[in-house]
Amino acid sequence: MSQIRKDPASRTWVVLATERGKRPSDFKASAAVAKPDQAELDRCPLCFGHEDMAPPAVFEMWPAGGRGRKMTWITRVVENKYPALRPGELLSQEDVNEFFHFLTGVGGHEVIVDSPKHTDRLANMPHGQLVALVKTYVQRYRFWRNDKRMAYTLVFKNYGPEAGASLSHPHSQLVAIPIIPPRVAEELDEAKEFYARENECLYCRMIATELKGKPSRMVFENDTMAVFAPYASRFPFELRVMPKRHMSAFEEMSDAEIGDCAQALGVMGKSMEKLLSRPPYNLMIHVAPIRTPGLLYYHWHIEIIPRLTLPAGFEWGSGIYINTVAPEEVAKALRDGIKRSRPSNVAR
Amino acid sequence: MSQIRKDPASRTWVVLATERGKRPSDFKASAAVAKPDQAELDRCPLCFGHEDMAPPAVFEMWPAGGRGRKMTWITRVVENKYPALRPGELLSQEDVNEFFHFLTGVGGHEVIVDSPKHTDRLANMPHGQLVALVKTYVQRYRFWRNDKRMAYTLVFKNYGPEAGASLSHPHSQLVAIPIIPPRVAEELDEAKEFYARENECLYCRMIATELKGKPSRMVFENDTMAVFAPYASRFPFELRVMPKRHMSAFEEMSDAEIGDCAQALGVMGKSMEKLLSRPPYNLMIHVAPIRTPGLLYYHWHIEIIPRLTLPAGFEWGSGIYINTVAPEEVAKALRDGIKRSRPSNVAR
Repeated sequence: MSQIRKDPASRTWVVLATERGKRPSDFKASAAVAKPDQAELDRCPLCFGHEDMAPPAVFEMWPAGGRGRKMTWITRVVENKYPALRPGELLSQEDVNEFFHFLTGVGGHEVIVDSPKHTDRLANMPHGQLVALVKTYVQRYRFWRNDKRMAYTLVFKNYGPEAGASLSHPHSQLVAIPIIPPRVAEELDEAKEFYARENECLYCRMIATELKGKPSRMVFENDTMAVFAPYASRFPFELRVMPKRHMSAFEEMSDAEIGDCAQALGVMGKSMEKLLSRPPYNLMIHVAPIRTPGLLYYHWHIEIIPRLTLPAGFEWGSGIYINTVAPEEVAKALRDGIKRSRPSNVAR
Repeated sequence: MSQIRKDPASRTWVVLATERGKRPSDFKASAAVAKPDQAELDRCPLCFGHEDMAPPAVFEMWPAGGRGRKMTWITRVVENKYPALRPGELLSQEDVNEFFHFLTGVGGHEVIVDSPKHTDRLANMPHGQLVALVKTYVQRYRFWRNDKRMAYTLVFKNYGPEAGASLSHPHSQLVAIPIIPPRVAEELDEAKEFYARENECLYCRMIATELKGKPSRMVFENDTMAVFAPYASRFPFELRVMPKRHMSAFEEMSDAEIGDCAQALGVMGKSMEKLLSRPPYNLMIHVAPIRTPGLLYYHWHIEIIPRLTLPAGFEWGSGIYINTVAPEEVAKALRDGIKRSRPSNVAR
C-alpha cells in the first residue's frame, strides 16, 4: 500500500505510490540533456571572449593579480537581458478596482555565469571552479542584503531545456524581490512553530535524524555538509544539501564550509549523471529573508529537483505530489554510484 | 514597469512582466495537441466497444431507457489502472525514525470517460454531452462524500501530453484523499479570514468586482456562471469558471446551473482553440472539503491552466510566478474570438 507522507518542513504532502513504480535506473533514457553544437557555441553570450554579446557585468571574479593580463575571468554576473524586475521606486498600490493589490515590480534579476567554459557542468567542473561559484553566490547575497527595498534574495539554477534553461552555457540566476516568497514563508512558519514547541531547529533535528536513520536516505556527507533524499520527496531524485552546523544565511559559511558545499555539489552532479545521463534539473537555495540575521529556527538548504516527471492537474490542483520512487531507493542508488567511483569520502 | 500582483484568494504572488512579452496569439505555434492515429484508436481502452480493455466501471450513464439495447453509454467511470490510492484501512503512523509521519495511502483514484467518442473535446462536444459530463462529476462528488475516511474529492482533467495526459481519449480524473490538499487549505484560510473581516464571501466579492471591472478581465457569462482571467494569473490564458450564486459544493448546482456550467466549459474550449489551436491544459475543480456543507466563506470554482510555459527554478523555489501576458489582454483576445463566432451570449 502506498504512503501519504508529510514533509515536516512545509505543508507539502506526498503520495508515495511505488507499486506503479519504476526503478531509479528506468529514468535514464528520457533524461539526457543534448550536447551543444558549434553554432550554439559561436553565438553563446556567456562564453569567455563574448562579453560584448551580454549585458554589462555587475561582478567579476578574477584570479589573484590576473585582471588586465591574458587571463580569463573565473565567474561573472550580468544583468538579465529580459529582467522580470528592475531598479525603481517601490510602491504598494490598490488596483483601480479597489479589491486587488499590487507592488511595483522593483527588484533585481541577474545571470551568474558559473564558469567561462561552455561545457562545464556541476559534474565535471574542477573543485576550484565550484568553490569560485559558491563564493560568487555568497558575494551576491552580501550585495543584495544592503538594498533596503528588498525582502528576499533567491539564487537558483535551471539545467537543460526541460528545466527551463534557454542557454546551455553553465549559469545560475538571482532574483531579489521586495516580498518574502510564499514557499519560503511557509517553511519559516513551520520552522518557527517547531522551534517554539521543541526548542530546537527543525532542520538540525532533520539532519540528526537522517544521519542515523535506517533505512538510510543519506547520499553523501563531508565534515560540514549533509546530502540526502528528503523523506517526503515530491519528485524522483529530489535532493537536499544542508550545512550540519546551524546557519540561517548562506553567507555565514566559513571557507571550509564553502569548500565542503562546493564538493557536495560536485559529487551530486557526478552521481546524478552516472545514474541518469545528464538529467535536467532545477536547483534552488532557500535562505532566511534579508535583515533577519542569525535566525535560530531557520536553516539554509539547497533543493535539487530533477525534471523527469510532469506535475499535472492533480499536483497543480492539490499541492500534493505523487512520486513513484521511494527516496530510500534513490539514496541507495546514488550512494552505490559514489562508492564505486570514489572509495573515500562516502557516507556510511 | 512590471507589477507584482497578489492573488486575493491565496498566498500566491505573480510578477506580471509584459515587457518581455508576447501577444496572446504568439503562443499558437507551439501549442497544438496532435490528432490521434488509427493505431492509437485501435488500442484505446476508453473508446466505446473497448470496455474489456479498461478496469471495471464504477458508474455508467446511459440514455433514458437505453441500456441493454443497441445504445451507447454516455459517460463512464472506471478505476484507475495504476491507482495512487486504494481502499483500505486509514492509519496515521510515525515513521520508524520518529520525526517523520505518514498516513496509509487510502483513497480513490478514478478515470471519468468524458464521452464514448475518441475525438470529442470540450471545444467540439455537443451541449448534451457536456451536460452529461458535468452531471457525472456531480454524481461522483455525491458518491465520495459518503466515505467517512475521506476528507476531500478532487476532480481534474489533463488534456494533451504536455499537460500530463497519457491517453488521448477525452477523460477526467478523480482522487479522493484523507487529507485536505494544501492548495485548498490555503484558499480556505484566506477566504475564512476575509469573511471574518468583511462579512462577505471573498469569491462573491471577486465576481462582483470582475463583472464591473475596467479594464475588464471577463471572458464570458451566462445567467448563472462567470468566466474570467484572474487578476494574478500565474500562467498565460489562465481562467476561472465560477457560479454567480454563492455555493461551496459543486453538487449544490441546480439543473439550470449545470446547463450553464456545461455551456461555459464548451465556450471556453472553443475560444481557446480558436486562439491557440489545441492547447494542452489542466483543469481543476476546487470545492469545499467533504462534510463541510454550506460553507459561507468558500465558493467552488474551476481553474483552467494552459500548459504553454514551463515553471522553472524561480517558480519552484519561490511559489511566485512570472507571467509575460496580462490577463486583461488574454480576456480581450478570448472575448473577441467569442464575439466573432457567437454574436449572442457574450459578456459585455
